[in-house]
Amino acid sequence: MNLGVMESFEAGLSLISLGVSDLTRSREFYTNGLGFTEAPESNQHIAFYRMQSVCLALYPASELAADIGINAEGSGFRRFTLSHNVSSEHEVEVLLRLAVAAGAQLVKPANETNWGGYAGYFSDPDGFFWEVATGSFLDPVR
Amino acid sequence: MNLGVMESFEAGLSLISLGVSDLTRSREFYTNGLGFTEAPESNQHIAFYRMQSVCLALYPASELAADIGINAEGSGFRRFTLSHNVSSEHEVEVLLRLAVAAGAQLVKPANETNWGGYAGYFSDPDGFFWEVATGSFLDPVR
Repeated sequence: MNLGVMESFEAGLSLISLGVSDLTRSREFYTNGLGFTEAPESNQHIAFYRMQSVCLALYPASELAADIGINAEGSGFRRFTLSHNVSSEHEVEVLLRLAVAAGAQLVKPANETNWGGYAGYFSDPDGFFWEVATGSFLDPVR
Repeated sequence: MNLGVMESFEAGLSLISLGVSDLTRSREFYTNGLGFTEAPESNQHIAFYRMQSVCLALYPASELAADIGINAEGSGFRRFTLSHNVSSEHEVEVLLRLAVAAGAQLVKPANETNWGGYAGYFSDPDGFFWEVATGSFLDPVR
C-alpha cells in the first residue's frame, strides 16, 4: 500500500455531483435562491460551487431515512457521485486499483474524458459512485 | 436577505452522509480498505471522516448516468443527505426559512435531536435532502 497516495485520497474529496432534472431550475435555487457563488468553471452544461471543507459520514440508510422522517425504500440511480481529483493519470490508475482491491467494483475504467481530463468510476459496497479524475478544470485538493 | 448568513451558508457544506446498508461492511471499506482516518466523533452507530475541501456541482441526471455508463432510472430514497452546520438554533431557523423562501420543501421542522443538537431538513427542487444543524458534535465550518 502506498501511504502517500492513501493520504491524498483521504484529504481529497473534491466534488459532490448532484444529478438534477432541470439544471435551470436547480441553478435558480442554488445561485439565486440560496445565494451560492458559481465558480468560474461553470458553463451552460454544469454549475460548480466551491465549498471550504466537508466531512463524510456513514450511517445506516434506515436510520438516515428515519431521521428525515421518510420511507427508506429506493432503487436505481441515486443521482449523485463523489469525485476525487488527483494530480496525474498514474494516480487515477493507482487509486482505482486501490479501490478495487478494497472491494469496490470498477464501473468505468479510466479513460480520456470529453472535458479534456482522465477519469474512471468505481462503486463502493453500497453502489455509491466515486469518480477518480485528473485534469485542469479543478485543481487537486491537498 | 441576510448576506452574512448567506455567506456562511455558501462556505458551509460540512457533512456528506451516505446511507449504507451495513455499517460494518462500509467501515471496513473506507477505514480499512481505503485507509480513511475516522474522526474521534465516530462511534458504533456512525462513522465520520473529515475532508479538507469540497466542490458542489449540479449536472443533469441523465448526463451523470451516461458519464458513469448506467441507466438513469431510479426512485425512492437516494440514501444520502447534505448537512450544513451553523452556530446557533437561530441560524438553523433562519436558513430553513431562507431555503423554503427559495423554493425548498420543509421536510422536518427544526427540533432538538437525539445527539444533543438542533436540526431540521429541507429538500431541494430535485428532492435532495439538506439538514441544517447546530450542535457540538461537529464545529461549524467558516
